[in-house]
Amino acid sequence: MSEPVQTLDGWYALHDFRLIDWKAWKQADPEERKQIVEEFLELTASFSAVEEARNGSYGQYSIVGHKADLLFIHMRPTVEELNQLEHQFNKTRFADFLTSPYSYFSVVELSGYLAKGDADPDSNPYLQKRLKPVLPKTNHVCFYPMNKKREGNDNWYMLSMDERREMMKSHGMIGRAYADTVTQIITGSVGLDDWEWGVTLFSDDPLQFKKLIYEMRFDEVSARYAEFGSFLVGNRLTEQKVKDMLQV
Amino acid sequence: MSEPVQTLDGWYALHDFRLIDWKAWKQADPEERKQIVEEFLELTASFSAVEEARNGSYGQYSIVGHKADLLFIHMRPTVEELNQLEHQFNKTRFADFLTSPYSYFSVVELSGYLAKGDADPDSNPYLQKRLKPVLPKTNHVCFYPMNKKREGNDNWYMLSMDERREMMKSHGMIGRAYADTVTQIITGSVGLDDWEWGVTLFSDDPLQFKKLIYEMRFDEVSARYAEFGSFLVGNRLTEQKVKDMLQV
Amino acid sequence: MSEPVQTLDGWYALHDFRLIDWKAWKQADPEERKQIVEEFLELTASFSAVEEARNGSYGQYSIVGHKADLLFIHMRPTVEELNQLEHQFNKTRFADFLTSPYSYFSVVELSGYLAKGDADPDSNPYLQKRLKPVLPKTNHVCFYPMNKKREGNDNWYMLSMDERREMMKSHGMIGRAYADTVTQIITGSVGLDDWEWGVTLFSDDPLQFKKLIYEMRFDEVSARYAEFGSFLVGNRLTEQKVKDMLQV
Amino acid sequence: MSEPVQTLDGWYALHDFRLIDWKAWKQADPEERKQIVEEFLELTASFSAVEEARNGSYGQYSIVGHKADLLFIHMRPTVEELNQLEHQFNKTRFADFLTSPYSYFSVVELSGYLAKGDADPDSNPYLQKRLKPVLPKTNHVCFYPMNKKREGNDNWYMLSMDERREMMKSHGMIGRAYADTVTQIITGSVGLDDWEWGVTLFSDDPLQFKKLIYEMRFDEVSARYAEFGSFLVGNRLTEQKVKDMLQV
Amino acid sequence: MSEPVQTLDGWYALHDFRLIDWKAWKQADPEERKQIVEEFLELTASFSAVEEARNGSYGQYSIVGHKADLLFIHMRPTVEELNQLEHQFNKTRFADFLTSPYSYFSVVELSGYLAKGDADPDSNPYLQKRLKPVLPKTNHVCFYPMNKKREGNDNWYMLSMDERREMMKSHGMIGRAYADTVTQIITGSVGLDDWEWGVTLFSDDPLQFKKLIYEMRFDEVSARYAEFGSFLVGNRLTEQKVKDMLQV
Repeated sequence: MSEPVQTLDGWYALHDFRLIDWKAWKQADPEERKQIVEEFLELTASFSAVEEARNGSYGQYSIVGHKADLLFIHMRPTVEELNQLEHQFNKTRFADFLTSPYSYFSVVELSGYLAKGDADPDSNPYLQKRLKPVLPKTNHVCFYPMNKKREGNDNWYMLSMDERREMMKSHGMIGRAYADTVTQIITGSVGLDDWEWGVTLFSDDPLQFKKLIYEMRFDEVSARYAEFGSFLVGNRLTEQKVKDMLQV
Repeated sequence: MSEPVQTLDGWYALHDFRLIDWKAWKQADPEERKQIVEEFLELTASFSAVEEARNGSYGQYSIVGHKADLLFIHMRPTVEELNQLEHQFNKTRFADFLTSPYSYFSVVELSGYLAKGDADPDSNPYLQKRLKPVLPKTNHVCFYPMNKKREGNDNWYMLSMDERREMMKSHGMIGRAYADTVTQIITGSVGLDDWEWGVTLFSDDPLQFKKLIYEMRFDEVSARYAEFGSFLVGNRLTEQKVKDMLQV
Repeated sequence: MSEPVQTLDGWYALHDFRLIDWKAWKQADPEERKQIVEEFLELTASFSAVEEARNGSYGQYSIVGHKADLLFIHMRPTVEELNQLEHQFNKTRFADFLTSPYSYFSVVELSGYLAKGDADPDSNPYLQKRLKPVLPKTNHVCFYPMNKKREGNDNWYMLSMDERREMMKSHGMIGRAYADTVTQIITGSVGLDDWEWGVTLFSDDPLQFKKLIYEMRFDEVSARYAEFGSFLVGNRLTEQKVKDMLQV
Repeated sequence: MSEPVQTLDGWYALHDFRLIDWKAWKQADPEERKQIVEEFLELTASFSAVEEARNGSYGQYSIVGHKADLLFIHMRPTVEELNQLEHQFNKTRFADFLTSPYSYFSVVELSGYLAKGDADPDSNPYLQKRLKPVLPKTNHVCFYPMNKKREGNDNWYMLSMDERREMMKSHGMIGRAYADTVTQIITGSVGLDDWEWGVTLFSDDPLQFKKLIYEMRFDEVSARYAEFGSFLVGNRLTEQKVKDMLQV
Repeated sequence: MSEPVQTLDGWYALHDFRLIDWKAWKQADPEERKQIVEEFLELTASFSAVEEARNGSYGQYSIVGHKADLLFIHMRPTVEELNQLEHQFNKTRFADFLTSPYSYFSVVELSGYLAKGDADPDSNPYLQKRLKPVLPKTNHVCFYPMNKKREGNDNWYMLSMDERREMMKSHGMIGRAYADTVTQIITGSVGLDDWEWGVTLFSDDPLQFKKLIYEMRFDEVSARYAEFGSFLVGNRLTEQKVKDMLQV
């Protein structure tokens, strides 16, 4: 057995994707639509308010293409809270116009491959900020889940800790070269959802998502060992943009 | 041909996942909703009552994410009883507000890899308790199905009994290290459902699901030989939590 | 090219799985429901009547889990008859409460690996009985489709006839050890449906399905060369059990 | 780079599979149903009429199992015509009772592996007849799509022309042995639909589909290099059989 | 780590596939249908108008088979604009008769494998034209997504830059041989959608799609390293053809 890497785990995360039933939305009474949008914005304002209390984070996005129209990202300290947020939202009138094609449940994770020393995560402000992150307010978001392969000679979990650390180091350097334009939040989902990790990228330039991930693909850790799920890209929704999007 | 391991088999298990049609639920008459919740709680109280009679076990959970809203786990001595429970539930009014995205049919199994001596399972109280388990009343549950691989050089079923026993022993030691925080119930489903086993984990700390499964992934028996299906995680529903969840 | 084994082919078989729309069923008028059940039982009695005329066989089962609620197995001498049975059933009122999640079309097959001598199948009563079988009236049924692998070094169809015969012999011996508790009907579906074979098992003890298939999995013919589809298990429905199941 | 084989291409083909909404059909007014069947038969008569004009071919079939109820095969000289036939049919009242679970778009293809000399396909009557075929009026049809594998050591497209030709020759001999009972139409779909070829078989004895394809599976070109999609089998529908099938 | 190739990136592209609900369309009021078609044509005229302003491009097509009825291709400088076009279209009355089975989000890409010298893409008119293309007004279109494989010994991303360049050169020569009959637009989608590239082909002869792609399949870069998604082929829709298609 190879030695597992240690991880630090922070807030739980729920990526909640929704499709809009545009036909039903258009058929709704204009006054009702107006109220529903207001209710929704009040609710999302309350979601955002947890950021100031340092009790979680919230982001909302409009997704490109047929896979989803909306993405709500919630981060909270407990699974119960995330589940209650789902129920709270499903009970709103706006949810009656939405379906749920996809979601992802994971927990913010810092892997120990590149850890320096043994800072106590509970008292280290840098680690606290990364484990309990405020979602960046960039214009664009990209989400995808991934696994490390276990196929024939390409079996990540049969490598030694040193081999894995060496590769992750080189991998991390690519990410760092993009640090000015792309912020990454890695969430672990082994035992929580269908892939081993979720990756959420934030940038003001969506082309950087492509450039970063394409460059990484030539890195051995991706080239030989990564398996990817669906990629979903969106634009951050301010209150005004929510209103514009839902104005019919 | 390699020698198959002997198994002991106990109660049959049905993991019954459901999605709530929230829109229809909200549109229902408030009085009817109240009655439906009461009916449902009476029914589930009768399900739980079998535990005292040692004739089965029952657990109910709220699932995180879009894959399901509810999970009912039933354990019973016969397939007929499990099937009747399905029909009984589908005939309730509450079921009219639910759809069935997933289920899993299996039977509690103790594998013989680690068996000591030849205790008679019918008279051994320890084995009886494990073969006919009471579902732990922890706050969280995790379910996933799995196979042992039969791909090229990674073919579990072509290994000798000794090789398999050696690996399962190391695997079991990881599980035992988590015995204080995570209870595992293994159910076999070869010939019963689409994967070879179901794994149901119970814990008061959902992070332990991730830690346990992640650590196991570096163990050869998982790293080389395990294939995993969907992972579903939930929170146990007390009567009060059922009422809160369904209160609109 | 390796020498193909010769097969004997008997009746065509249709495994017809259905889901019940319980909500619609409950909403139907009680008198109408009663009539529909009576009509259905008359129809299925006529299906069963072909057994006495030795012109086919019929079985009906209640399936466990979300994949199906009902299974009807029809065996008939021609594809036209099977297709007409589908249409006949779809025209009944009961069919309006059902959907069709799955079906399997195949033909009863005896492979020549273990054939002795050259009995004329048309005049040999033993072969006639196996090629035109009466479905056993056991309490439980198990159905699954399967392929023989053609992947890299695990390519069944590149083996010599002798290698295949040797493995099938060992495989057959496991089946024979279960002959008292499990009856197998093998149907071929190369060119007819999406897998190469269908396997239908009949037993009064559903645990025997698991034991038999698990033991076979360690046999080289399964371990290296078998690919499996979905497994579906059910309970045989007598007239009274149909009435009980549909009583709401 | 290996040398590609040359192909001759004839008529475009659309295999259009449909499911019947039996419930809606039964609920329709009897007089309307009668008109709809008449309209449908008039339309299909016009489809068949192109055969005499040598401007295409048409066949209609009732499919066994849940995957489809009906199959319409159209062959026409241009993609525009095929597309217009789809629209024309979708505008009929009968189409309102049908859904479209599957279709296949391809073009009749004669591969050059076995070509003799360099007959000019435009003036050679034998080639013209095979490139612009009249669909055989047999009682049964079988359709499946397929690829040639490109996996590890089993990569068809990395073989030399000679290796491929040698294997196709042996493959063709099996087909020829069935020439009296099974007619094959091969259509190419590289760049047109999701598999590389479609195979449509015609016979008065559906067991011959199984025998032919099973025998081919032991041939190296199938055993090592073929990947198969869904198999769909049906019975040819004469006008009277259409009326019988739709009579409720 | 192998050296990634540099890419030049141009306009963002959305391939938006739609299915028509023909039954609902036929049931709509004739006058309303007429207005809806006019509104749709006005909208698409405004989409096309961006071509003159060199601010994007637009094409509309009728797709063959059950996978889609319509394809709208939009190219625009920003992700925000593409997303707004989706919303704008979904708010039209025509969209109420459509569903969204598929879409593809990517960005026009010129790979650097064959780049000559170091022309400044911002000032080079040839590169500008290829990065910000006007969609060709050919009668037919073909779209498919693809990956480069990362499986065992067939791992594109583990090859050296020289190996990749050599193979891409040979690959490009096939494309160039078809330059008179087929125009290719390659769009990159690493980090944007579920495959690594989208390929959109334009031709007046749809058989050329098959010939080009079939010939490429024997090229090592396709034979060993390409994975393909669904292929969708269609006919360009002029205003008159839109009217004809929607005339019921």
